[in-house]
Amino acid sequence: MTYPKHSPQIAILGAGLIGAAWAALFQHHGADVRVWDPAAEALAATGARMKAPLAQMAEVAPEAGSMGSLTLCDTLTDAVSGADLIQENAPESIPVKHALYAEVEPFMAPHAILASSTSALTWSELSPGLREPDHLITAHPFNPPHLVPLVEIYGTDQARVERAEAIYRFAGRVPVRLKKDATGHIANRLASALWREAVFMVQEGIADVEAIDAALINGPGLRWSVLGAHMAYHLGGGPGGMEGYLAHLGPSQERRWAALGVPSLSTEVQAELVAGVAREAAGRDMSELEATRDKALIAALRARKDAPHV
Amino acid sequence: MTYPKHSPQIAILGAGLIGAAWAALFQHHGADVRVWDPAAEALAATGARMKAPLAQMAEVAPEAGSMGSLTLCDTLTDAVSGADLIQENAPESIPVKHALYAEVEPFMAPHAILASSTSALTWSELSPGLREPDHLITAHPFNPPHLVPLVEIYGTDQARVERAEAIYRFAGRVPVRLKKDATGHIANRLASALWREAVFMVQEGIADVEAIDAALINGPGLRWSVLGAHMAYHLGGGPGGMEGYLAHLGPSQERRWAALGVPSLSTEVQAELVAGVAREAAGRDMSELEATRDKALIAALRARKDAPHV
Repeated sequence: MTYPKHSPQIAILGAGLIGAAWAALFQHHGADVRVWDPAAEALAATGARMKAPLAQMAEVAPEAGSMGSLTLCDTLTDAVSGADLIQENAPESIPVKHALYAEVEPFMAPHAILASSTSALTWSELSPGLREPDHLITAHPFNPPHLVPLVEIYGTDQARVERAEAIYRFAGRVPVRLKKDATGHIANRLASALWREAVFMVQEGIADVEAIDAALINGPGLRWSVLGAHMAYHLGGGPGGMEGYLAHLGPSQERRWAALGVPSLSTEVQAELVAGVAREAAGRDMSELEATRDKALIAALRARKDAPHV
Repeated sequence: MTYPKHSPQIAILGAGLIGAAWAALFQHHGADVRVWDPAAEALAATGARMKAPLAQMAEVAPEAGSMGSLTLCDTLTDAVSGADLIQENAPESIPVKHALYAEVEPFMAPHAILASSTSALTWSELSPGLREPDHLITAHPFNPPHLVPLVEIYGTDQARVERAEAIYRFAGRVPVRLKKDATGHIANRLASALWREAVFMVQEGIADVEAIDAALINGPGLRWSVLGAHMAYHLGGGPGGMEGYLAHLGPSQERRWAALGVPSLSTEVQAELVAGVAREAAGRDMSELEATRDKALIAALRARKDAPHV
């Protein structure tokens, strides 16, 4: 099956912020999207929740062509029947997801992929909820899902994983595959490792919250938006590249790793984190901060089209 | 003293890649730049080394106005005399830098700032090389220095630190201040912490080198180019922001930190890192990779002008 020769049919289970972002993303790229939510109110709010993401998609990917259809489904069966990909965005609870999978599985097409957006849970925890565990993959988007291209994928049926990757690429995503199931997938492990050291620096009084964020945005964050961490050491290694870097600085790198810290989220540290982001926000409320973030992400994504990353 | 009312006079000590990037940056923004290097050949190559950075500066900051002067100095005295800021880019050796400082100090103007670009060394290690340690600051740029805006600053004389910040801002930099001297400053500590987890995932077979780099570039790296790590948790915390995040997920965050790994740079891991970046480079040599990086950085910097980061 090749996309976009044949537009995929997508089921979105759960019409919260993540579900609405997925729905907007797939519809914008021409897929037929069917949305279901156990709460009638949430389902009814889907269109309103998709409005901003759809407007942003038009800015990021104006070339996507004609939009697909959107159907709000009162029953799970309606949403799931005939779907190529079922994107599940239920609460992060193993029993809740298992119960949902038990309802979904009988109505899945034989080729269908059940994809969990889970951030905190793993394939190994979720797949026992199906009679055919291989029909499940984890497909974790990075927030906000319609703007940040990454989708981290783990599954055991290679054909399903490949079909899922094709569908996510059809929707302008960058699927990245894990070789082994892991808590936090890739990106949240990296983010968690970085934030641990950031909080350690706050705890030790090395720098303020807002100084650390400014250093990240104007230094490594900017560079990591165009160049991977491994590749950065390759380019930093001189003519010998990564091999030269490891030969000359490998031993000192292990010492530098040993010098990094493990903070404690004590009352004092928590208070300083809260005060620090308040100083950094400088009176801007959540919606203002999010609007600034989204506008900057859209500009960065547009810049990539002319000048691709390494 | 206010810049740019009065263009600063800059001395660049060491005409290697970092020195040439500093020289191009300051000259482009209208400062008068005097360059010295102990090796006559390196000094003679300064103009050639500045060519590409100067061309890139014209793309990034076309609004900068008329360029300053460039003088290649045969003697250290000529370079340093009358300079407001002396940017030192000597090899990362305490004795070498101390010896240089001993030669520089007698010719420094009373208000002058001696700023070390050091990456690996600290203010506490370097300042004993001066009779007046307060005249030294560390001012670490992030590679490539003329494109990545961050300059990390530590010093003990607040007036000098403030004057240095004004000069770096004059040159379009984003100075970020440390409250306490620390190995790796801020950015390299963050980069080191992130890479440790990246190498751990390679060691554990969770994901390939190139998959981890792709996840970073298309996920957290992109987001950190517009939004700091602390602020990302603030926005991810729902209406309660950072406070809500810490209240609900603080304990599980400490567990997640405990689940992160410490890799060993064993022969096998090193071989996999080298093989991984080779796959990722896909035949592109260093200069091609650097050109792609620089083009993407320039596009990202231009995008920021219309849509500033959070």
